[in-house]
Amino acid sequence: MPRTILLIGTLDTKGTEYEYVRDLIRDRGFGTLTMDAGVLGEPGFIPDIPADEVAVAGGGSLAALRERADRGEAVDVMIRGVCRLTPELYEAGRFHGVLALGGGGGTNIAAAAMQTLPVGVPKLMVSTVVSGDVTPYVGVKDVTLMYSAVDIAGLNPLSRRILANAAGAICGMVGQDMPAAKDRPIVAASMFGVTTPCVNNIRERMEKAGYEMLVFHATGSGGRSMEGLIRDGYVAGVADMTTTEWCDEVVGGVLSAGPDRLTAAGEAGIPQVVSCGALDMVNFRAMHTVPEPFRERTLYRHNPNVTLMRTTAGECREIGQRIAENLNKTTGPTVLMLPLKGVSMLDREGEPFHDPEADEALFDALRRHVRPPVELVELDLHINDTAFADAVFERLIALMT
Amino acid sequence: MPRTILLIGTLDTKGTEYEYVRDLIRDRGFGTLTMDAGVLGEPGFIPDIPADEVAVAGGGSLAALRERADRGEAVDVMIRGVCRLTPELYEAGRFHGVLALGGGGGTNIAAAAMQTLPVGVPKLMVSTVVSGDVTPYVGVKDVTLMYSAVDIAGLNPLSRRILANAAGAICGMVGQDMPAAKDRPIVAASMFGVTTPCVNNIRERMEKAGYEMLVFHATGSGGRSMEGLIRDGYVAGVADMTTTEWCDEVVGGVLSAGPDRLTAAGEAGIPQVVSCGALDMVNFRAMHTVPEPFRERTLYRHNPNVTLMRTTAGECREIGQRIAENLNKTTGPTVLMLPLKGVSMLDREGEPFHDPEADEALFDALRRHVRPPVELVELDLHINDTAFADAVFERLIALMT
Repeated sequence: MPRTILLIGTLDTKGTEYEYVRDLIRDRGFGTLTMDAGVLGEPGFIPDIPADEVAVAGGGSLAALRERADRGEAVDVMIRGVCRLTPELYEAGRFHGVLALGGGGGTNIAAAAMQTLPVGVPKLMVSTVVSGDVTPYVGVKDVTLMYSAVDIAGLNPLSRRILANAAGAICGMVGQDMPAAKDRPIVAASMFGVTTPCVNNIRERMEKAGYEMLVFHATGSGGRSMEGLIRDGYVAGVADMTTTEWCDEVVGGVLSAGPDRLTAAGEAGIPQVVSCGALDMVNFRAMHTVPEPFRERTLYRHNPNVTLMRTTAGECREIGQRIAENLNKTTGPTVLMLPLKGVSMLDREGEPFHDPEADEALFDALRRHVRPPVELVELDLHINDTAFADAVFERLIALMT
Repeated sequence: MPRTILLIGTLDTKGTEYEYVRDLIRDRGFGTLTMDAGVLGEPGFIPDIPADEVAVAGGGSLAALRERADRGEAVDVMIRGVCRLTPELYEAGRFHGVLALGGGGGTNIAAAAMQTLPVGVPKLMVSTVVSGDVTPYVGVKDVTLMYSAVDIAGLNPLSRRILANAAGAICGMVGQDMPAAKDRPIVAASMFGVTTPCVNNIRERMEKAGYEMLVFHATGSGGRSMEGLIRDGYVAGVADMTTTEWCDEVVGGVLSAGPDRLTAAGEAGIPQVVSCGALDMVNFRAMHTVPEPFRERTLYRHNPNVTLMRTTAGECREIGQRIAENLNKTTGPTVLMLPLKGVSMLDREGEPFHDPEADEALFDALRRHVRPPVELVELDLHINDTAFADAVFERLIALMT
């Protein structure tokens, strides 16, 4: 079977352009699989996966969407549909890369589908809207964006050239073999400035042991990226030292990674050692942006654009419970390591966030809520003590080998 | 000679990664041309175009940049260097597509070089910074952005996969032939809501006559896109009906296309008919954003986010002069058509921008400053009258055939 390229698009309005790239792809000896996400009209050619199938997968029906003619609702249903079908088809081996062409609406739909696929699977979005903030189209994946320069509306000397480049690019990606290489297995770790000594110590030991460390900053998108790569199967083990994004999720800071943080390794059954790094702080931007209710709290001006707020004992109890709840779902080896002498550079004695009572509330909540198979290890050390990093390293290496 | 791919990058810090993609590209039978934009260290391999050559082309020297160690200055010089060398090498037939890998700095340098190339030339930027606003990296060109997902720092199972995709994509683009097609010649036109009847009438007649009309909204980036495509040789003629971006350039509105607007067709010697569409208005965003000195002027709330300000007779005189100065540089057939009864929907009698004195100041300035070879045609019509569109069409078609 030839390697195959999935084409996702509104084939009612862009049938001509999709037919053009489809034929170029076939001319190069690749297969095509076409999925229609158009709601209003009939497709320009018979697609492999018709729009009604997409609508049903999205929990609607094409007839109903057409009758109500609510553009927003139609786009929502079609997004849900393509996001359900695309990973299913990929896992069934039906395609090896994806190409789409779109304006505002089409880019929203197809880019969402692309983000359901693992990093490394070729994904190319030819779009009129590659300006302003493209983060929603890319997410944490390797979605490639080609600016169409002209509207994707008919074939002319310009659009023929751009679309031929796109067909060439996706064929080139899907046809590209990787050279054989002796890659080292990857360990993912989460870091913040206040847990850098811990993560650097672990990294040093891991690299000596023949591993590659990928370090993610716990900035919300950093945590999500890390979990995305874990889900995509790139990671052999996780040293999740800096779970601070939970503070922002629970209290309302600006660097939350969402309520699913700490689930990827557990779901994938990948060995993980988890700790409490920077659970003493919630992140805000410049001091004047700190919400009114928090103005009287213990605030620390890290720099003009970053303000940190000490978590309270009450908040720590909830954070601990939420972390435990997600860890408890694990299907793989999971160790939670508590650094009883403190969780960041700022909660050491004499530092502005020193608050043993709040730390103890956190540890106590974790102790009370964590259940097997999660294993709890308590160490009378600070998270940045070398001995703590040593313990994490030894535990993780034992789980991975 | 095989088709060749230009690699532009900081080969001092990313030598390993560039060597990897270079070898993959060569393995597929393509040539490579490597240009070093790194300032601080020695390149990881001997480049075809060394960093010193780039620095000299940028008006500096590598030794001086290293000595001063000013990162901002170094980046500026290297940007000027790559932006001078890249189009020269392209015109000399030395390469057929360009690939670069970069973080913040590298993306700035290489994407600037890519924007010097015509639309249609394959351009792929693998970047860590495909988030937030990517407009500066794309400009008005078909720069393709691939998010690297992980830092471009060493080879690991993830970066090997992403970079192999990139090598495959650029080879696929450069190796892609376009099918033979009978394309219709393109006429570019500039439009605003207030000149839509004019441009629609011209379009209708052009399409019947066998032309393709590409219409650009005169939003600053729209005018620049149009001029970019004219320079790239895609356009057979120009109906530049809506030169309103000059109001924003002269008075200080938000939709300027810069001081070079109205030069591309003249330089390329491409037939153009130019008019005065929407020269009665300067654009601002929401009413409260109108700068203080303009608050007492004639303002029109087009919608919550667009506020229009009537140009004065004095401003119109300067706008007319600036337009004439740029048109006078033309090397090709250029006709300036004045619609003596008004330039937009809003300056008709009874409309909020009706001001015959200001319009007359504009026409008078154009009359006084325009010189041969520019031909001046005055019509006692409004720009949106069918007879005006007819006259533009007939004149332009005569120039093109």
